[in-house]
Amino acid sequence: MKQHVALALIAASLAGGAAAQIKPEDAIKFRQSGYGFMAWNVQRIKANVEGKFDKEEVVKAANAIQAIANSGMGSLYLPGTDKGTGWEASRAKPEIWTEKEKLGKAAMAFNKEANEMAKVAATGNLDAVKEQLGKLSGTCKSCHDDFKAKK
Amino acid sequence: MKQHVALALIAASLAGGAAAQIKPEDAIKFRQSGYGFMAWNVQRIKANVEGKFDKEEVVKAANAIQAIANSGMGSLYLPGTDKGTGWEASRAKPEIWTEKEKLGKAAMAFNKEANEMAKVAATGNLDAVKEQLGKLSGTCKSCHDDFKAKK
Repeated sequence: MKQHVALALIAASLAGGAAAQIKPEDAIKFRQSGYGFMAWNVQRIKANVEGKFDKEEVVKAANAIQAIANSGMGSLYLPGTDKGTGWEASRAKPEIWTEKEKLGKAAMAFNKEANEMAKVAATGNLDAVKEQLGKLSGTCKSCHDDFKAKK
Repeated sequence: MKQHVALALIAASLAGGAAAQIKPEDAIKFRQSGYGFMAWNVQRIKANVEGKFDKEEVVKAANAIQAIANSGMGSLYLPGTDKGTGWEASRAKPEIWTEKEKLGKAAMAFNKEANEMAKVAATGNLDAVKEQLGKLSGTCKSCHDDFKAKK
């Protein structure tokens, strides 16, 4: 029995790694920061598509979204962060911790479209950027509908 | 005279572009989000350097810092955002708007080290990552000392 407990502790420690040292309120704040910064960048790609198109700005915005999407934010959904306050009270729904498969699919769909957005932005093709922004925004909305509580 | 006014209005409109449509409180929130997300990533590079070194995690963190550093956050320091509340009350010092040359140098130094951090992370060399993290953190601290009010 003792050995089992020790092994479980080691496994938990390895799985948690550096993330385990983060305070719950900080983890929530970091999550909200990542989504908040992506919101700015989605918003400015939209502004470029609807107004004067500045390829360089779209590339910068798309690269930021891509890097944040691929940064491994999943590790910020630590045990004990289902409720709590970062910059504001967390709106994470309980389903994040209970519907892992559905969440995984949503995260993969978002990452795919974020990676594609960066590729499309680099081409500087307005129509393609517009179309890809629609696909990307669709994955944001879908995940928010399922996993983020409304204000 | 009328022509001058018209030209000035056009110039202001072009300079502002998409950024001009952002509400001051949103601009402050987006800035705080960018810095908040970078803080997480600097923190986890530090944790990797001091504990178990996971090259992939360091690469993800360094790429996020790099993309945010190069995203053009300067455009979020709009007129009217010298005071105000985003996620929290802005701690931007007035010097951001009065000491442009010094600020520009600080921003360029930070970008340089953030770009270098991403390169160094890709090598997976622990000692080099440790050294580069020191240089990067130095540019963060220096800019905070000059341009960010203490809590």
